[in-house]
Amino acid sequence: MNLELGRKKIKWVEKYMKVVNYLRDMYINEKPFNGVKVAMSIHLEAKTAYLATILKQLGADVAITGSNPLTTQPEVAEALKEYGIHVYAEKTLDEDIYWKNMDKVLEFNPNIIIDDGADLGIRLIEKFPEKIENLWGICEETTTGVKRYKALYNDGKLSVPLIAINDSYMKYLFDNRYGTGQSTWDGIIRSTNITVTGKNVVVGGYGWCGRGIAMRAKGLGANVIITEIDPIKANEAIMDGFRVMKMNEACKIGDIFVTATGDIDIITEKQFLNMKDGVILANSGHFDVEVKVADLEKIKVEKKEVRPGVEEYVLPNGKSVFLLGKGRLVNLTNADGHPIEIMDLSFALQLEGAKYIMENYKNMDISIKPIPYDIDKKVASIKLKTIGIEIDTLSEDQKNYLNSWK
Amino acid sequence: MNLELGRKKIKWVEKYMKVVNYLRDMYINEKPFNGVKVAMSIHLEAKTAYLATILKQLGADVAITGSNPLTTQPEVAEALKEYGIHVYAEKTLDEDIYWKNMDKVLEFNPNIIIDDGADLGIRLIEKFPEKIENLWGICEETTTGVKRYKALYNDGKLSVPLIAINDSYMKYLFDNRYGTGQSTWDGIIRSTNITVTGKNVVVGGYGWCGRGIAMRAKGLGANVIITEIDPIKANEAIMDGFRVMKMNEACKIGDIFVTATGDIDIITEKQFLNMKDGVILANSGHFDVEVKVADLEKIKVEKKEVRPGVEEYVLPNGKSVFLLGKGRLVNLTNADGHPIEIMDLSFALQLEGAKYIMENYKNMDISIKPIPYDIDKKVASIKLKTIGIEIDTLSEDQKNYLNSWK
Amino acid sequence: MNLELGRKKIKWVEKYMKVVNYLRDMYINEKPFNGVKVAMSIHLEAKTAYLATILKQLGADVAITGSNPLTTQPEVAEALKEYGIHVYAEKTLDEDIYWKNMDKVLEFNPNIIIDDGADLGIRLIEKFPEKIENLWGICEETTTGVKRYKALYNDGKLSVPLIAINDSYMKYLFDNRYGTGQSTWDGIIRSTNITVTGKNVVVGGYGWCGRGIAMRAKGLGANVIITEIDPIKANEAIMDGFRVMKMNEACKIGDIFVTATGDIDIITEKQFLNMKDGVILANSGHFDVEVKVADLEKIKVEKKEVRPGVEEYVLPNGKSVFLLGKGRLVNLTNADGHPIEIMDLSFALQLEGAKYIMENYKNMDISIKPIPYDIDKKVASIKLKTIGIEIDTLSEDQKNYLNSWK
Amino acid sequence: MNLELGRKKIKWVEKYMKVVNYLRDMYINEKPFNGVKVAMSIHLEAKTAYLATILKQLGADVAITGSNPLTTQPEVAEALKEYGIHVYAEKTLDEDIYWKNMDKVLEFNPNIIIDDGADLGIRLIEKFPEKIENLWGICEETTTGVKRYKALYNDGKLSVPLIAINDSYMKYLFDNRYGTGQSTWDGIIRSTNITVTGKNVVVGGYGWCGRGIAMRAKGLGANVIITEIDPIKANEAIMDGFRVMKMNEACKIGDIFVTATGDIDIITEKQFLNMKDGVILANSGHFDVEVKVADLEKIKVEKKEVRPGVEEYVLPNGKSVFLLGKGRLVNLTNADGHPIEIMDLSFALQLEGAKYIMENYKNMDISIKPIPYDIDKKVASIKLKTIGIEIDTLSEDQKNYLNSWK
Repeated sequence: MNLELGRKKIKWVEKYMKVVNYLRDMYINEKPFNGVKVAMSIHLEAKTAYLATILKQLGADVAITGSNPLTTQPEVAEALKEYGIHVYAEKTLDEDIYWKNMDKVLEFNPNIIIDDGADLGIRLIEKFPEKIENLWGICEETTTGVKRYKALYNDGKLSVPLIAINDSYMKYLFDNRYGTGQSTWDGIIRSTNITVTGKNVVVGGYGWCGRGIAMRAKGLGANVIITEIDPIKANEAIMDGFRVMKMNEACKIGDIFVTATGDIDIITEKQFLNMKDGVILANSGHFDVEVKVADLEKIKVEKKEVRPGVEEYVLPNGKSVFLLGKGRLVNLTNADGHPIEIMDLSFALQLEGAKYIMENYKNMDISIKPIPYDIDKKVASIKLKTIGIEIDTLSEDQKNYLNSWK
Repeated sequence: MNLELGRKKIKWVEKYMKVVNYLRDMYINEKPFNGVKVAMSIHLEAKTAYLATILKQLGADVAITGSNPLTTQPEVAEALKEYGIHVYAEKTLDEDIYWKNMDKVLEFNPNIIIDDGADLGIRLIEKFPEKIENLWGICEETTTGVKRYKALYNDGKLSVPLIAINDSYMKYLFDNRYGTGQSTWDGIIRSTNITVTGKNVVVGGYGWCGRGIAMRAKGLGANVIITEIDPIKANEAIMDGFRVMKMNEACKIGDIFVTATGDIDIITEKQFLNMKDGVILANSGHFDVEVKVADLEKIKVEKKEVRPGVEEYVLPNGKSVFLLGKGRLVNLTNADGHPIEIMDLSFALQLEGAKYIMENYKNMDISIKPIPYDIDKKVASIKLKTIGIEIDTLSEDQKNYLNSWK
Repeated sequence: MNLELGRKKIKWVEKYMKVVNYLRDMYINEKPFNGVKVAMSIHLEAKTAYLATILKQLGADVAITGSNPLTTQPEVAEALKEYGIHVYAEKTLDEDIYWKNMDKVLEFNPNIIIDDGADLGIRLIEKFPEKIENLWGICEETTTGVKRYKALYNDGKLSVPLIAINDSYMKYLFDNRYGTGQSTWDGIIRSTNITVTGKNVVVGGYGWCGRGIAMRAKGLGANVIITEIDPIKANEAIMDGFRVMKMNEACKIGDIFVTATGDIDIITEKQFLNMKDGVILANSGHFDVEVKVADLEKIKVEKKEVRPGVEEYVLPNGKSVFLLGKGRLVNLTNADGHPIEIMDLSFALQLEGAKYIMENYKNMDISIKPIPYDIDKKVASIKLKTIGIEIDTLSEDQKNYLNSWK
Repeated sequence: MNLELGRKKIKWVEKYMKVVNYLRDMYINEKPFNGVKVAMSIHLEAKTAYLATILKQLGADVAITGSNPLTTQPEVAEALKEYGIHVYAEKTLDEDIYWKNMDKVLEFNPNIIIDDGADLGIRLIEKFPEKIENLWGICEETTTGVKRYKALYNDGKLSVPLIAINDSYMKYLFDNRYGTGQSTWDGIIRSTNITVTGKNVVVGGYGWCGRGIAMRAKGLGANVIITEIDPIKANEAIMDGFRVMKMNEACKIGDIFVTATGDIDIITEKQFLNMKDGVILANSGHFDVEVKVADLEKIKVEKKEVRPGVEEYVLPNGKSVFLLGKGRLVNLTNADGHPIEIMDLSFALQLEGAKYIMENYKNMDISIKPIPYDIDKKVASIKLKTIGIEIDTLSEDQKNYLNSWK
């Protein structure tokens, strides 16, 4: 482990996280989080580490763990301890260790949880109901996490207000689309050194993540094929110039496959067996259930690592497929996650979300809502300021016209 | 007027309106609109005419007028009469004639109004309150119309249920984006014969219409500049690779200007005077208030038609600007409106919306809602069928996973 | 015929032909073409008409005819006579009239020929050898014309120097690619009012014209398929993100077909019979031989005009295909040809080419060459000036470095 | 050093270098290079290593060194020795070591040189004239190398035939454009983890490399600015939708700068001082002279490595700029070089070029020419075969038409 590299990575993030820095400078004198305990479960790399340091600077007591077995960067975790953050995170496939680290963070009795995938919040609610009393609210980062909390809510088990950061405009329009788009291809290209240009790229799912992945594949010169289960999104994909077909057909044509649906079993046994020799399999959805790794393990004749982060599965038909990052989030396992400026937006929302909960939790419903629209717009306006862009404002006449039916 | 051309245009539409035809074939035996009076106010050209003939075939008694002074195509209006439709529509700038035609349609005592911009429905409610009794509901096509009806509703004056076709997915994701995008450039290119490639194109507004216009300008090789008042949309425009600035700056750089905001005064006097010589001005918003024609009229030294649909305004500084279609919807005044297959989707929604009102009006709230989501998806599925595209469906396991928080 | 419209169209061109105007202003005092007879065979519409007026202004005596049976715009031809140009051009499919007009222009004993497709120059050389004596040289505009002149040269029959305007950078990189790209889609869209977005577009040929057509189809949201006979170009098309296949396969998938190869028989009988119902057929190559109209005529069950410029061929299998502009250059038959600013570049080269021949013909070889590179660059530099763009220049150090091998 | 990783990387390349493998399988029985000595100077990483192993398999005796101080991957160099190749290559900035390794390769008395940048061939000709006798010819890979050999030729010093691989279609249309385009952004993104999306990207030079870099930047959502010294290319860049300006202007706006001109002094002192704080500087040209590092070194107040491959230069005005890979080829210093399939094409040409020299050197002129066109097409055809694409062929009628002027 290279502690110096961990330190450098965190310092580097500071240079490009201008919206978070802007908020930090606004709040630094009042230290609004004084005495507040914040628990974070998040892919622990330099950008998330930096958010933890900012919360700390603004007065919070912060404990942090990972949100996915393979996405913790050890050198960053180590460097983060130097900032006075309580760090319990390891890069490991050992599930016991993963959950033990979660529990250590929960021992901390958090007032606010910043969650990424819903593991931490659900763990608290399910396993440690006595800690709910201290918990004011949760901010959840991801599509998958929001989906899980909604299921929990529908089961009547959600007992604190939840801000769905993911459903806020400055999150899903940017992070899911432009962030996933760029970083997914970063992960694939740097692990394989193959061309995207001229390849048949199959993208499973045309949600915000899927369309980011497809848009960038097209921008890199690929011929893109979309699979969907929603007929409206399927029509959009066609209108965006892509081919749409069932995975049963796409599996025969694709050179590179990327899944981003939030659901299980997007590519399974029969489809693996119909693929061309040498195809690349990657996942950008939250869990490693989209490319069905269990099926690959079941049918494989042989398996070996052929480049860092690339495993060859030799199939009974003699062909090989190459799985990246064990089917986990390829942009985190095989690259450095979303670009800094994208996370800057999401983390500005997290910071504001945590602050909003702290200031309002007594009056908030037990519900799942995006961040209030005014805060969303505030973050957008600060972003424009940090890059020197000025936009028009409505005149009184224009406002009146918009409110009139004459 | 060329009646034969009008007939041909309506026949031509039939070939490409496959979703509407699919619905027609489904319903033709039951003739569900038997005895129902439908009033339409709509840009009267071949596609809208074809929708009228379908309603007629399905049993309705149909009266139709225009929805904009210059967008009626006389040869189509004439040909439509041969189908047994009551047609009261003229291409004229005479406002009296425009409203007299409206009133003739209202004399008809409609049960259902299909509106485009809200002129017909608001006219009935304001001027002929006695007719509200017969009216079951309204389907409104446009962003502008929905905005006006919402203002009316907020004033407590809306007295029937309204289906906001515009706010339905298969409408705004397609018509506003891909339809406006293609047809706006059709109108500009065919009227001017100038290159879009390599030009600075300024698009006022980055809503669904604006982004369609911007996307196609980029696709034609332009360098696109966006003006916005919403910081979230401004950030999206930047992330899509466009420059964003105030109109006061953009006006100095642009070669071609297109507005699509739904508001007034997007380009005004001071900005006209800062433009380069020879710029093109076009509007794709519903009303002719975005490029402020009144200001051009006020400051002009000279004005003349230089090509059909293109007027030169010579300004006091000696420079000229060229206004297309008198600042009205350029895709309708200077071209044939949205492409057929796009209107096919919108009109499938109109047809289903009218049918839904007819079957449910007794139980509907006085409210403004998009078409029920299931109908939206039904239209999407039929579209896929008509072009031979099959998509995946969720397995039981996949459905269960989506509903679980474990 | 609308003479006033013809006048307006020519005037309009003047506003956007800034490179030609720049050259006119440079030369207007010396009137370099005084006493020189220039014969032009060219698609006679407003832009070509404008070039003729410039040559006239610079002193030349100009006679002009068409270069394709259907591409003469009568109102422009008529208006052009008012400028003192000798005009012999009609819009007609009668070949006798076409060639009689050619011969009238040749009676004029030209010193310089500006040709578009090689009809005029080859006619003079073949039919009127006695006129070769007066002829100093030829400027040829098109890929097809240059190809024909090269065949003539290889047969030992070319007897004057020829400047292949088409092979000059500021021509083929711009006119063939950006000009054909935009104007082909203008012609198709305005004649049909159908979407390009979401369609399968098959482009026959991936030369400069074909890639312009493909690039714009992609920019309009189509899914593009390329057919080629050259494996290098086929590889480029794939790398540009397109599908490549044989026409025998593409014919089954395409919704819109456009040919631009310069060769015959790109789409023929068997392929027509394998097409989907309702496809659109268009050609952007010089002659009407690429979409094999003779085969359509042979196998058709019925034929009728369904919109201006659109003919339906009902095939024996009951399906229809729609042929645009009788298979002739769709951007000229169904639209106004290339955009003005594109032709501005080509015509600046024509003007300079004619001037170069006039000044140098005594010392020129009998050969086929592009315009001298310095003139090509001069035109490029003037274009940049007219749009206010400044670029870098090489320092002495930079020049030395480029010439060194150290 | 990780020898196992070096082995894996070479094995991995084999899977995607299908054209080279196709040629290997064609020639493996005859072993055409038996007894031939081939010397290579080339960026020594897995792909170039693989080419060396193929030459060896086909009978050649191969000695190899690097072609750039920082682009040798030590683990690959080590692994390559196991194949029986003579490897003299180190990753070092020590120029003495660089040239000593060159000389060791030349001691080998090569018959054929495969060069990348012209260092090896020029070294032999200048320093070891006695070895020219044994040398049959040179294959040069790059734009820069060909430019240097042309200068040498113009000085009358080239004494063997040279095949300019770089000037062959299947090289420069693919490697320079699609290869440089993808791998440059790979290098920038993986070293910095910043967004390209929404950034102002300045590309110095719009040759084949520059347009690849610009095209991919656009595809990643950037707003691209081009600087050029050639007015024709400047016009192309504008028509491709980019802004064009002088570097003196661009330096104030850019967020990321990439040079690819083949010349010196593209960005220099005054321009560094006009940049925004935090900009990224990268070079994709062959030598580290485009971003003028000497000026940075001269004016810097402080310098430190902030991430692997990223150095911060603090300028006297207090702002920082970040230089990637010391201003050397960013795709090689900060990533793995061009994608495998791209190098597959270039190396198929190298293989064929070496074979052509071996078979024809006695009859070849001392000249610099691209590979014979038929071989270029052969490589293109094999590429299509390996990806299962079939294309059309000309009929006799079509061939005759192309050769006729009638």
